Amino acid sequence: MKPTITIEYCPKCGWLLRAAYMAQELLTTFADDLQGVLLKPSEISGRYTICIEEQKVFDRKEMGGFLEIKEVKQLVRDVVAPGKSLGHADRKMQD
Amino acid sequence: MKPTITIEYCPKCGWLLRAAYMAQELLTTFADDLQGVLLKPSEISGRYTICIEEQKVFDRKEMGGFLEIKEVKQLVRDVVAPGKSLGHADRKMQD
Repeated sequence: MKPTITIEYCPKCGWLLRAAYMAQELLTTFADDLQGVLLKPSEISGRYTICIEEQKVFDRKEMGGFLEIKEVKQLVRDVVAPGKSLGHADRKMQD
Repeated sequence: MKPTITIEYCPKCGWLLRAAYMAQELLTTFADDLQGVLLKPSEISGRYTICIEEQKVFDRKEMGGFLEIKEVKQLVRDVVAPGKSLGHADRKMQD
């Protein structure tokens, strides 16, 4: 069974568009690796978390801000498709 | 417990963008009525379905095409928030 990613976002902070953007990026890059991406409005102000099944891989409050999409993909890749290359953006990180 | 909507789309047909658009429309209009919207790539070619929990409210193949977003919202409203007005677009249907 492929994993489901949940993006829980604070709608009052206006983060639906950001969450939908990230969902599309993840569903494009990991098209064959995911069951789907759930966009979930949070009832907790300021929350923005990304979970792969029950495993939280990103939390805005813990991180003190947002990550660039490249870094989000690396976090997700490390869990759902560890051997997968993310292309030239990925290689830049290793330089 | 609020319901989760699942939009299952055929990625090979290029319907991710359409599904993500509809997810954002539904999460905006039904912000307080939904648990979330799951974007789910389908392994079945040409599939585009919208389900509220287990209840299928739209199937492209059965319908013979897509509905306009206003009509999608009416289908969803009738299940998740029957008393909710969808504004002037909704009234037009009753004229």
